[in-house]
Amino acid sequence: MYVILVYDCGEQRVGKMLKLCRQYLHWIQNSVFEGEISEVKLNELLGRASRIMDTDTDSLIIFKSRDQKWLDKEIIGKEKNSTDNFL
Amino acid sequence: MYVILVYDCGEQRVGKMLKLCRQYLHWIQNSVFEGEISEVKLNELLGRASRIMDTDTDSLIIFKSRDQKWLDKEIIGKEKNSTDNFL
Repeated sequence: MYVILVYDCGEQRVGKMLKLCRQYLHWIQNSVFEGEISEVKLNELLGRASRIMDTDTDSLIIFKSRDQKWLDKEIIGKEKNSTDNFL
Repeated sequence: MYVILVYDCGEQRVGKMLKLCRQYLHWIQNSVFEGEISEVKLNELLGRASRIMDTDTDSLIIFKSRDQKWLDKEIIGKEKNSTDNFL
């Protein structure tokens, strides 16, 4: 499936979350990621993320679509990273 | 149509962008918005946003879906704002 992931977390956890999410998805903006991922891999990612997060203050939102074709993307301004999936 | 909007802009422009986007969409996380919007209203929003943004450094991404039913949403941690569309 195709997902968009956005997180909002305390500054001291941003680096860890970035590093984690980049192992699974493409980084497209500050705290925004997208990409094709399997249900199994997504559950693995969410499990690892929830161990980094302070769930009282941090949040993570996943939008899931069965297929990328249902979503159009438009970018205005600086395109931070469109093909980054390397560590 | 149903859209997800995320922006990343310089600190001095964050307040203006937040205020603008909240006039058109629901605020769900720091710099993330979602909602039903017409093509006309979306163009109006993007026009106004691009006048606030410094397009050399800032970015705004819109994901568009013809229908919200193509997207599932999952939230982990703190749900910042799910029904906020009031100013």
